[in-house]
Amino acid sequence: MQLSSENTAVGFIGLGVMGKSMASHIREAGYPLHVYTRTASKAEELVKQGAVWQDSPGSLAAASRVIITMVGYPQDVEEIYLGKDGLIEHAAPGTYLIDMTTSSPQLAERIHEAAAAKGLHALDAPVSGGDIGARNGTLSIMAGGRGEDFNAVLPILERMGSNIVLQGPAGAGQHTKMCNQIAIASNMLGVCEALAYAKISGLDPAAVLKSIGSGAAGSWSLSNLGPRMITGDFEPGFFVKHFIKDMGIALQSAKEMKLDTPGLALAHSIYERLSALGYEDKGTQVLYNYYIKE
Amino acid sequence: MQLSSENTAVGFIGLGVMGKSMASHIREAGYPLHVYTRTASKAEELVKQGAVWQDSPGSLAAASRVIITMVGYPQDVEEIYLGKDGLIEHAAPGTYLIDMTTSSPQLAERIHEAAAAKGLHALDAPVSGGDIGARNGTLSIMAGGRGEDFNAVLPILERMGSNIVLQGPAGAGQHTKMCNQIAIASNMLGVCEALAYAKISGLDPAAVLKSIGSGAAGSWSLSNLGPRMITGDFEPGFFVKHFIKDMGIALQSAKEMKLDTPGLALAHSIYERLSALGYEDKGTQVLYNYYIKE
Repeated sequence: MQLSSENTAVGFIGLGVMGKSMASHIREAGYPLHVYTRTASKAEELVKQGAVWQDSPGSLAAASRVIITMVGYPQDVEEIYLGKDGLIEHAAPGTYLIDMTTSSPQLAERIHEAAAAKGLHALDAPVSGGDIGARNGTLSIMAGGRGEDFNAVLPILERMGSNIVLQGPAGAGQHTKMCNQIAIASNMLGVCEALAYAKISGLDPAAVLKSIGSGAAGSWSLSNLGPRMITGDFEPGFFVKHFIKDMGIALQSAKEMKLDTPGLALAHSIYERLSALGYEDKGTQVLYNYYIKE
Repeated sequence: MQLSSENTAVGFIGLGVMGKSMASHIREAGYPLHVYTRTASKAEELVKQGAVWQDSPGSLAAASRVIITMVGYPQDVEEIYLGKDGLIEHAAPGTYLIDMTTSSPQLAERIHEAAAAKGLHALDAPVSGGDIGARNGTLSIMAGGRGEDFNAVLPILERMGSNIVLQGPAGAGQHTKMCNQIAIASNMLGVCEALAYAKISGLDPAAVLKSIGSGAAGSWSLSNLGPRMITGDFEPGFFVKHFIKDMGIALQSAKEMKLDTPGLALAHSIYERLSALGYEDKGTQVLYNYYIKE
């Protein structure tokens, strides 16, 4: 059974840059939309367009058949789902809970178990594709949970993403997102070291990009962040502080599986130094500065 | 002035997998071709097709107006160019010398100076694109040297490559190739750590590739080497031993410029351990095994 738009109330928690665009696509598809977010002003635009403001996760839960969360850190996820005024406490049996925050795979498993014990259907479904993917509804959505739950909410996920894969049971979505962040982490070192080498050896980094961008050294980061590094544009995109959070989760998770990830550990430590230097609210491409040290 | 094919004898030294294809394109374009390579049997096919065998770099130099070298290591390059029976000693004034080996930028500068002192035109022009790029004549060629020398030999380079950029003066081609290898080095850590994490966390690595391959984690290595890692195909492509050579040159060159490259240093050290374990003649994607340790 899939959930059609006319009679399925959707609750959305977390209206940051990503969440706002994602919630907006759901409202535009005709789903009655309830919203809650820590900073109420961020909901104003959606409320003007017809979304219903809710004062807490608990009241939002009571009004929604499907609840989507897109918040900041695993501790936020934990409180919203497992806290006293949380979703699992207040959602009616049969409610679907979809956490799209990048969060801990182990927490996703705990939430899934606690939800199942109350007759709730929990999925983890983190995304990649950034603010542009959220705005265009072209996110890559990596889901974990039960197949029938995934199928039920697929029409809603399809409003937000274009590459939607059920990767396995609860936690598998988060594990997949960790793979994504692990691949990016070391590659950022390579991209920055390559372009720093270009600059310091006296080459024209833009010409170097022309030679190396489309071959075996090519990557999304090189093509998309490389030009910003060269022109000194360090605005986020993707925040250093959020990348550090993600790498921290991945490191912890790898450690629990006894997987050694020296590239990830190195990238994490260098980004932590960048953060200590005051770059936590810059885009991840600011790593280039670490190498150039002008 | 550009060198046309009817009256320009080209000498080609080094007929490995790459060199053989590259030399063959030049012969097919109508240039009289002279060849020399350490293992004479590797020249047989080209000689059957009309190339002239030469017994030494010196005799090849005497017969050629343009000389291309595509050999193994910087010490080979040094001997062929600067040795007693070498090209600079034996080439006639006005000869063009193009080293397409991935070699040291500093050696390229030395060769350029020694060549100029004898009225010879030296270019460094390493490539990326591998055996397939060599076979299809679609290599990326990164050149260093004087603009007029580059323009003179451009018709010959165009037989071998499709993305040909003069990056700067002597050594700039090698420096650009170092940027290429530096970007690849750390990214290989990221790709292998991501896919090892996928496998060890119980995901289906092929499904993970579907979720992460085309977004911000995407790269040539993830898309092209990832599937080989997953299926256990570790045949070269690009040899571990050659990658170690390239990373060693890049590390040395970065050190001389006082550029710290911790990602490159880490990748180099891990590949050296792989080599010590007997993987030096495998493809670079065998790094996956280092993480999985089955």
